Amino acid sequence: MVTILLSPVVQERFGPRLQAAFGGHAHRIVHLDAPPGPDGDFGIDAAFLSRDITGRSTKFKISETMERFFHMLEHSRNLRWVQTHSAGADRPVWKPIKARGITMTTGGGALAGTVAVTAVGGVIALARRFPEAMDAQRRHAWEPLLEDRSPPDLAGTSALVVGLGPIGGEIARLLRAIGLRVTGARPEARPHEHCDEVISYAEVRSRLPGTDWLVLACPLTDMTRGIVDGAGLASLPKGAHVVNVARGEVIVEKEFIEVLRSGHLGGAWLDVFEVEPLDPASPLWDLPRVMVSPHSSGHAQGNYDRVAGIFLDNLGRFVAGEPLRNVVQAGR
Amino acid sequence: MVTILLSPVVQERFGPRLQAAFGGHAHRIVHLDAPPGPDGDFGIDAAFLSRDITGRSTKFKISETMERFFHMLEHSRNLRWVQTHSAGADRPVWKPIKARGITMTTGGGALAGTVAVTAVGGVIALARRFPEAMDAQRRHAWEPLLEDRSPPDLAGTSALVVGLGPIGGEIARLLRAIGLRVTGARPEARPHEHCDEVISYAEVRSRLPGTDWLVLACPLTDMTRGIVDGAGLASLPKGAHVVNVARGEVIVEKEFIEVLRSGHLGGAWLDVFEVEPLDPASPLWDLPRVMVSPHSSGHAQGNYDRVAGIFLDNLGRFVAGEPLRNVVQAGR
Repeated sequence: MVTILLSPVVQERFGPRLQAAFGGHAHRIVHLDAPPGPDGDFGIDAAFLSRDITGRSTKFKISETMERFFHMLEHSRNLRWVQTHSAGADRPVWKPIKARGITMTTGGGALAGTVAVTAVGGVIALARRFPEAMDAQRRHAWEPLLEDRSPPDLAGTSALVVGLGPIGGEIARLLRAIGLRVTGARPEARPHEHCDEVISYAEVRSRLPGTDWLVLACPLTDMTRGIVDGAGLASLPKGAHVVNVARGEVIVEKEFIEVLRSGHLGGAWLDVFEVEPLDPASPLWDLPRVMVSPHSSGHAQGNYDRVAGIFLDNLGRFVAGEPLRNVVQAGR
Repeated sequence: MVTILLSPVVQERFGPRLQAAFGGHAHRIVHLDAPPGPDGDFGIDAAFLSRDITGRSTKFKISETMERFFHMLEHSRNLRWVQTHSAGADRPVWKPIKARGITMTTGGGALAGTVAVTAVGGVIALARRFPEAMDAQRRHAWEPLLEDRSPPDLAGTSALVVGLGPIGGEIARLLRAIGLRVTGARPEARPHEHCDEVISYAEVRSRLPGTDWLVLACPLTDMTRGIVDGAGLASLPKGAHVVNVARGEVIVEKEFIEVLRSGHLGGAWLDVFEVEPLDPASPLWDLPRVMVSPHSSGHAQGNYDRVAGIFLDNLGRFVAGEPLRNVVQAGR
């Protein structure tokens, strides 16, 4: 008997596919309102954290439903597997699960296409001066990009994409299609089909002086935390741009703000921050040519179905005792 | 002896390449300050309208330098060839030149890559709700794209790219790379390597009901003027978007504004308008999810060199009596 915790939304929407995934295995589906047994244990073997349970949680503010979800997992001594909708599982709330050695799987890949397109949209918006155009639009002012205001060509510039998972790989592919020279970075330098060159994380620092577009798309790990600091940012060529769809902690934010203020950089498109929601008092909101996005680069209507597809596939593997997909590696 | 009119900027920047293009042919280079001969004729055989001569001219307001340029051409009875930096030569100022049957060549292709990337940036910005994000940013408000605010997936939607010249073809290639189904439209339906399907201009109207992204990238001709009107726009699916990097007159602007006001469309990214500069009193400036760009989709620092490259190549052909590149076809 497998007891699985998931939301009624998932059960309603994917009922027949859930049954198919269980494939006749004895199972019990419980929701957040299930009571514990007499011994205080909820008896959950597996759980699916879907977007509707997370709700509006951030890494600093947990929704009530998410709180209840983790409470039930904490009090399920036989818990073996948790699937999450998100691409990463680096939030503090996961720590106790990791410490117990429970298998964790992510929605990695489900959001990759959307995140990558959004990041490339950030690159184009900065390169083509969309923030300035929108500012002029508010003033009903016609200010063509002539003479001094004419931007450098985007094609032919160089991008360094840090992280070559499904998101970074897709960003590399699209930037190359636009005509950029793309260097990728990952834990170890191994060639990648969509990169002109691949370096290791350890080499990132030394390559910043030749990077016009620094695009961060890596998971938050011990290797990537603070991989870009003030000195690194200052070593970028004057007018270089930063796009961050990874995690806020990948950049040392305080130092980043100083470098942005100095006018050394051409601008930034930022979806993630050290503290989220971003403090209304943060200087990032008002810095010129800095575009702030509310950790939404991957939000799209098709995600729910794509994540559920990964979960259902993993559920079939779980009950059959096969290896799961998108397992979080140690240190992630 | 060939007498050519061009700007001192061009002469300074491309002196040796100019000499190479003339290849020993007797020639005389004149600037805008050259006086006419005793008979009032400037004696110009060929002329290059570079960006610095056009200055801030629009189709309604001609700069003094551009006025002088066309005055000199008008009073050069042996004029045989004019090269322009722009991708099109549909402005009224060209009418007398066309009427004289003089060969006209454009900078077509030089700006194509930049225009296409900008147009695709417009698509992504609208799809990924950048205008809303920038509005929230001004209010220091964290408003993630969750639940009702979550946008539809961009991949898998359909685009109709009207015009398959260097710009439209490149837009088609990039949109396909992002995962859209791309239908192209041109005067006659012939397959195109970057389109899933190609239709003729005559079929555009009937295909609008199945079009999520209407991208206009055609020259302004008798076939494309007003090719999209109010009824056509109203026949697009609810929430469809329009991107225009062609010419304002391709859409019937007054009717477009009405359809935008009705809330039927998801938004628009517009670089061109019936009257430019856009009237400060135009409703387009303030319509929600309408991004106004000041006819700058192709402006980039590398253009000057790329256009000069086309001119220099044509100059070599001209003095050698060979066919020129980028010749404007009748009716354009």
